[in-house]
Amino acid sequence: MDHIKSPFKGVSEDFKGRAACYKQDWVRGFHSGFRILAPTMYIFFASALPVIAFGEQLSKETDGALSTVETLASTAICGIIHAILGGQPMLIVGVAEPTVIMYTYLYNFAKDRSDLGGRLYLAWAGWVCIWTACFLFLLAMFNASAIISRFTRVAGELFGMLITVLFIQEAIKGIVSEFNIPKGEDHSQSLYQFHWLYTNGLLGIIFSIGLLYTALKSRRARSWRYGTGWFRSFIADYGVPLMVLVWTAMSYAVPNKVPAGVPRRLLSPLPWESKSLHHWTVAKDLLSVPPTYIFAALIPAVMVAGLYFFDHSVASQMAQQKEFNLRNPPSYHYDILVLGLMVLICGLLGIPPSNGVLPQSPMHTKSLAVLKRQLIRKKMVNSAKESIKQKASSTEIFGKMEEIFIEMDERRTPTITVDKELKDLKDAVMRNENNGIELKGPFDPEKHIDAHLPVRVNEQRVSNLLQSLLVGACVGAMPFIKKIPTSVLWGYFAYMAIDSLPGNQFWERLLLLFITPRRRFKVLEGPHASFVETVPFKATAAFTVFQFVYLLLCFGVTWIPIAGILFPLPFFLLIIIRQHVLPKFFRRYHLSELDAAEYEEFCATPRRNGSFSFHECEELETGSGNDSVEVCDAEILDALTTSRGEFKRRSVSFNDRSLQVYPEQVTQM
Amino acid sequence: MDHIKSPFKGVSEDFKGRAACYKQDWVRGFHSGFRILAPTMYIFFASALPVIAFGEQLSKETDGALSTVETLASTAICGIIHAILGGQPMLIVGVAEPTVIMYTYLYNFAKDRSDLGGRLYLAWAGWVCIWTACFLFLLAMFNASAIISRFTRVAGELFGMLITVLFIQEAIKGIVSEFNIPKGEDHSQSLYQFHWLYTNGLLGIIFSIGLLYTALKSRRARSWRYGTGWFRSFIADYGVPLMVLVWTAMSYAVPNKVPAGVPRRLLSPLPWESKSLHHWTVAKDLLSVPPTYIFAALIPAVMVAGLYFFDHSVASQMAQQKEFNLRNPPSYHYDILVLGLMVLICGLLGIPPSNGVLPQSPMHTKSLAVLKRQLIRKKMVNSAKESIKQKASSTEIFGKMEEIFIEMDERRTPTITVDKELKDLKDAVMRNENNGIELKGPFDPEKHIDAHLPVRVNEQRVSNLLQSLLVGACVGAMPFIKKIPTSVLWGYFAYMAIDSLPGNQFWERLLLLFITPRRRFKVLEGPHASFVETVPFKATAAFTVFQFVYLLLCFGVTWIPIAGILFPLPFFLLIIIRQHVLPKFFRRYHLSELDAAEYEEFCATPRRNGSFSFHECEELETGSGNDSVEVCDAEILDALTTSRGEFKRRSVSFNDRSLQVYPEQVTQM
Repeated sequence: MDHIKSPFKGVSEDFKGRAACYKQDWVRGFHSGFRILAPTMYIFFASALPVIAFGEQLSKETDGALSTVETLASTAICGIIHAILGGQPMLIVGVAEPTVIMYTYLYNFAKDRSDLGGRLYLAWAGWVCIWTACFLFLLAMFNASAIISRFTRVAGELFGMLITVLFIQEAIKGIVSEFNIPKGEDHSQSLYQFHWLYTNGLLGIIFSIGLLYTALKSRRARSWRYGTGWFRSFIADYGVPLMVLVWTAMSYAVPNKVPAGVPRRLLSPLPWESKSLHHWTVAKDLLSVPPTYIFAALIPAVMVAGLYFFDHSVASQMAQQKEFNLRNPPSYHYDILVLGLMVLICGLLGIPPSNGVLPQSPMHTKSLAVLKRQLIRKKMVNSAKESIKQKASSTEIFGKMEEIFIEMDERRTPTITVDKELKDLKDAVMRNENNGIELKGPFDPEKHIDAHLPVRVNEQRVSNLLQSLLVGACVGAMPFIKKIPTSVLWGYFAYMAIDSLPGNQFWERLLLLFITPRRRFKVLEGPHASFVETVPFKATAAFTVFQFVYLLLCFGVTWIPIAGILFPLPFFLLIIIRQHVLPKFFRRYHLSELDAAEYEEFCATPRRNGSFSFHECEELETGSGNDSVEVCDAEILDALTTSRGEFKRRSVSFNDRSLQVYPEQVTQM
Repeated sequence: MDHIKSPFKGVSEDFKGRAACYKQDWVRGFHSGFRILAPTMYIFFASALPVIAFGEQLSKETDGALSTVETLASTAICGIIHAILGGQPMLIVGVAEPTVIMYTYLYNFAKDRSDLGGRLYLAWAGWVCIWTACFLFLLAMFNASAIISRFTRVAGELFGMLITVLFIQEAIKGIVSEFNIPKGEDHSQSLYQFHWLYTNGLLGIIFSIGLLYTALKSRRARSWRYGTGWFRSFIADYGVPLMVLVWTAMSYAVPNKVPAGVPRRLLSPLPWESKSLHHWTVAKDLLSVPPTYIFAALIPAVMVAGLYFFDHSVASQMAQQKEFNLRNPPSYHYDILVLGLMVLICGLLGIPPSNGVLPQSPMHTKSLAVLKRQLIRKKMVNSAKESIKQKASSTEIFGKMEEIFIEMDERRTPTITVDKELKDLKDAVMRNENNGIELKGPFDPEKHIDAHLPVRVNEQRVSNLLQSLLVGACVGAMPFIKKIPTSVLWGYFAYMAIDSLPGNQFWERLLLLFITPRRRFKVLEGPHASFVETVPFKATAAFTVFQFVYLLLCFGVTWIPIAGILFPLPFFLLIIIRQHVLPKFFRRYHLSELDAAEYEEFCATPRRNGSFSFHECEELETGSGNDSVEVCDAEILDALTTSRGEFKRRSVSFNDRSLQVYPEQVTQM
């Protein structure tokens, strides 16, 4: 409980750390030139689409009180604030599903009270935000982020699974709604005759399943056998927005005889219409909220603060995994403070607040690692070629390359570390010297620099800022966004649900229960999580069944009409259960395997066992050329991380494994 | 040209050979007991569904002159004839796509002639059958089957691809037709108002794509990770008819407000309605056909005879591949004679004739191999257990087992061969004797008999007869079959098309063209055909492009209004091109690789290299039990054969390969 004794310690340390590299964060971003647009566009599409989908969900649930305009505006405003004032610029913020659920509960509560009603709904939600901001300030002040190591896999994955279940529920509810007349519409319209409703529903099924299927397929494009590397890479990165575009275009292929409004499209007032504009003056209604409700707002505020604290920290953690070799310091405490500020501003503006999102945050870091690599690689290859032309000795060639690497690395990494990281490259260069023609062939700048370059991330704030500005620009593009059929968004919800499953060990363990004993060898044949080999099946099954029952419980809570707002409670409780109750039923070693901090994976077929690097590239590459390298980098990163953006530790077999260190929370007890 | 000199030589030899085992064919079938129902049902479903689909296609193309009743009747009648009078009972006959295409051309020709018209269409088609039968008799008489070795891969695969393309075309035409008013229907019906037509079309898309997707998935059930072996096996064997059932049931979930007739269902008069009954008296109209047309019927007859001869022989060949270790003699010549008889009877009855079909024929043999294995295995395990209980010596145990095997094998296989085939099993038994506890463990009857049992097929006529009778029973079940939505059948056409592709080397080579050079290693990593390693890419590409252009040509011919009936010509021509023209452009060795008689496959990862057997079972099996063995057998057979039912020869690498023997037709030149 050390962290409570020294208030503001964490925040001030974080602030100092980030202030030291603040200027560089901008300079480096602008120096990257146009190439910075690649990660920018990538993250922009990855965050804009879900925000649009959540906006439509919110609009349906709150009878249009909030819609896509507001979710986009919040994501843009908070994104800009975070890019400029935030600590860790790798972190991406946006309106997420928990926020949508919370705002739905708030709406359902408010609309039935005569003294609140739809009119004061946003003002009351503003009070929730104000209280939430206060709690977040307190959490930042008392260095609460020190406890993030207690958030083990079990709570995070359970929460992820709940979101998945809610997405599926939303997709099903959405498709069913396509067969019905929307709330508050005129039943006598020809559009709402049975046959057009039915046509709308059938089109809904086709568009949503079509989007789901094509999006899932295009996501895996990188491992396709067909097409050039550039094409596959493009489809893998931009396939999902592209499919939204394709299916929207298809929806215009409906014959003219079908009345306008079939298929149904996004319901959202345009941002410059009065219905949108009145939100922005919510602040002046704040004091019209009856005092009882102002204090009642404390209850949801505790929940929201807890959720945001949890989500924001985990997203930040995922964006800064040690495999990325980030050079700038983390900023957990300070970022919670900034989050409080963002929540406050959103509350006063009458829009739902944003927080750190998964998997976009680690995706951001990943794409910047690829960018940095391209930059370093280019300079080093040029220098090496130059040196070779001038017939420099191997030592000189390597010396120059090392110089460039250290220069590009900017913040001085201890020379000893650089030496270690560049050892493989040095060996490749020195080969020239020792014995001219060796088995492995002479030094080839492009090939060997490719193979032996350590991972560095282009840490800057420009890509984050630009993508937020682009999200903001979407508000202006609402007339185009409104052309997306709602059914495409229901398909997108199903896509988000399914796409989040692989890599979730809870899910993998659930599947394991359905494999008959004599088929389990199939799991061992492929890459598999460590628990499969180290924990007896019975223990795995018991743990999984417990988690599943707990999931049902959590899902059940969301169905309770008003008390459903307490749905984050079970998760906070789970952290305590994990620490104090579960160890009574499971052996410690098994628990630490089933609830490992890291995603550890075994391979059945022997492969190179090394720390994370682009090494494996070498196997793939036979020629060289700029575009092929890009593809390859992204492909490897894809294979090494889970859907959530988590790095997998790869081991060849159990014997090969590094010593198991018990996670902190287990040994501390 | 030896075979022309001695007419009837082939037929009489075949007849003698089959007569010798005719009685046994029945006795053995009845002795198999109820177990014979498994292969019977399996083949029944595999042949009934396409016949129903072809019937619907025919009904659409001939304005209802022929329909599902007739295709089912033909398949049943010809099946019964073949089961009783035919030579090789492994061969399955049925109405196939080429017949449907031919009958469509005949109809299009007939309907426009005032002196034929719809009325004399079937009588004229009867004449075509009469001539076809004559040609087939001649082919049988002059031992034409001696040339089947000239039918190399290239013609067969090209023909398969054409059928695939036609299936896809049929699926697309079918789905499009769901949006339009069927020919000859009353446009003023409320059913044919735009919005119901459109609804019908949308439902059509959902049902056909739904069937396609679920059928493809269920077909691969055997390799699923989930579910018990029995369940997976059931889904893999009966999943496709099950899915037809499921989607038909779904089509009844359409709300009541939708008018009857949406979605559209099978159009076919019931067999006892007058519209169906008048066909059966076609024979008396034969002489009403003008003489010119009687002689004109010679032209289509040549085509049909050529097609049938080709198809029937290839299907028979596939059902008797040497890996099946059939004990009874083949009967190619005699079966062509019987085929002639069947064509004659069908012609006189006014129904489209049947011929040998792929992949049902090898599927039939495969399922009977699994059955025989169960029978032998049971007896041998019982004997071994009995001997072990009586503390018999290993020599005695093995002696008894060998006795049983020879007894079950019935026709005396030379003892030397049996000794060789049972060598592995002997080794396993003798292990007991030599050194009690060895590394590999002592003899375990269930496990080792499983692993080392040679393949034998339960050769008999009962399963063939029963499945034909069941197809016949379908004619009576037409009121139920008529409940299938037509769109489900269009999906089934697409399914048949896609399911036929894997294992077609022409298709695999086409795909190879779309793999960029640096991705080709992915092909080498998986199982792949031998040409990938042995033929330079340029030669493969040239050969494939030639084949593709030829395919386009063949497809183009089918679009020519009346001369389209000559569409089999290019295939006959191709056999000559293959022999005399292609060797001028390609190296002989490359040609023999690209157009190999056998499907040879390389594995990237080392695996046991052996002649075909159930050996690999051992790896999968850890326990024992009757049901698991069944699953396992079928699974291995699945993995070892292509979609067409062709056995793959497995080699670990090029070096491992047995000496390449040039196919006869190449060396003969």
